[in-house]
Amino acid sequence: MKKWKILNKRAGVTGKIFKHFHVDVEVPQSKQQTTFDIIATLDWVNILALDQNLDAIFVKQYRVGKDQITLELPGGAIERGEDPLIAAKRELQEETGYTSDQWDSLGSSAVNPAFMINDCHFFLASNCKKTHEFNFDEFEEIELELVPEKELVNKIERKEINHSLVELCLTKYFLRKNN
Amino acid sequence: MKKWKILNKRAGVTGKIFKHFHVDVEVPQSKQQTTFDIIATLDWVNILALDQNLDAIFVKQYRVGKDQITLELPGGAIERGEDPLIAAKRELQEETGYTSDQWDSLGSSAVNPAFMINDCHFFLASNCKKTHEFNFDEFEEIELELVPEKELVNKIERKEINHSLVELCLTKYFLRKNN
Repeated sequence: MKKWKILNKRAGVTGKIFKHFHVDVEVPQSKQQTTFDIIATLDWVNILALDQNLDAIFVKQYRVGKDQITLELPGGAIERGEDPLIAAKRELQEETGYTSDQWDSLGSSAVNPAFMINDCHFFLASNCKKTHEFNFDEFEEIELELVPEKELVNKIERKEINHSLVELCLTKYFLRKNN
Repeated sequence: MKKWKILNKRAGVTGKIFKHFHVDVEVPQSKQQTTFDIIATLDWVNILALDQNLDAIFVKQYRVGKDQITLELPGGAIERGEDPLIAAKRELQEETGYTSDQWDSLGSSAVNPAFMINDCHFFLASNCKKTHEFNFDEFEEIELELVPEKELVNKIERKEINHSLVELCLTKYFLRKNN
């Protein structure tokens, strides 16, 4: 199986957190041509941050995509050229005021290779402590919620935690823990 | 915590698999207004299909978002108003030629509440048999690959399986199996 040939990439709309491109491609075998749309964003990071009581630190915030208040792990965009671990430490502190001196990678995934270019990096921060005040972006309005580690799977089952990348970070953690 | 107020939703670019909207919102407390971009797609379905030997049926295909050939579970878009399970049965048969008479839900997730409106539904199809020929869309070029169930976690670790929603379907399955 061969990769398709990218003939041209034309800029479409530019949003706050993504750029859209029209991509003209050619199928190698048939030489047929078609156009796809792709969404380009920065890479992202998601952090499972556990404090000394094994409570996980969650952020509660309004999300316009689903028009819902959601319960999510701390996370955000990795700046261009930034090391994912540095971004994870920065985002955890900015969004929650917590820091940790014990960081482990839980891997990374392609968010959606069909039409998105970016990866999401997952980290476990253990033994977290509240050492700083919040430092919100202008339009961030965030409440913290502590969820005991042993209630996380139930919260997924009840869809109180339902963001696919947040769930993936948690299920990767449990899979590693159980193996 | 209150939901933000959606003031207006203006159509942006229309892609093959998504529509983009500019959404004007007001923060309830401060009355400040801002505009977000959201990506609207149909809901999706992903199927972990195991045959009688406990081999999982994967599809190998070129994906323009990452410009890579990827190994993914069968899946696709749920047509408007279609039952997710019906869509799962249809997609499995169309993409692989396999069918099953033993279906279980593995739950559903919001793909990304920050800027996407859609959900992804996950299913386990057991005891699958090859009963039909492939039925590709015009620009689908797909090879099947069977992966023994006990090699799935290794393939995730080695990033041979790396699509976030595919990984989530698999980790949900293993979490359920281990509990």
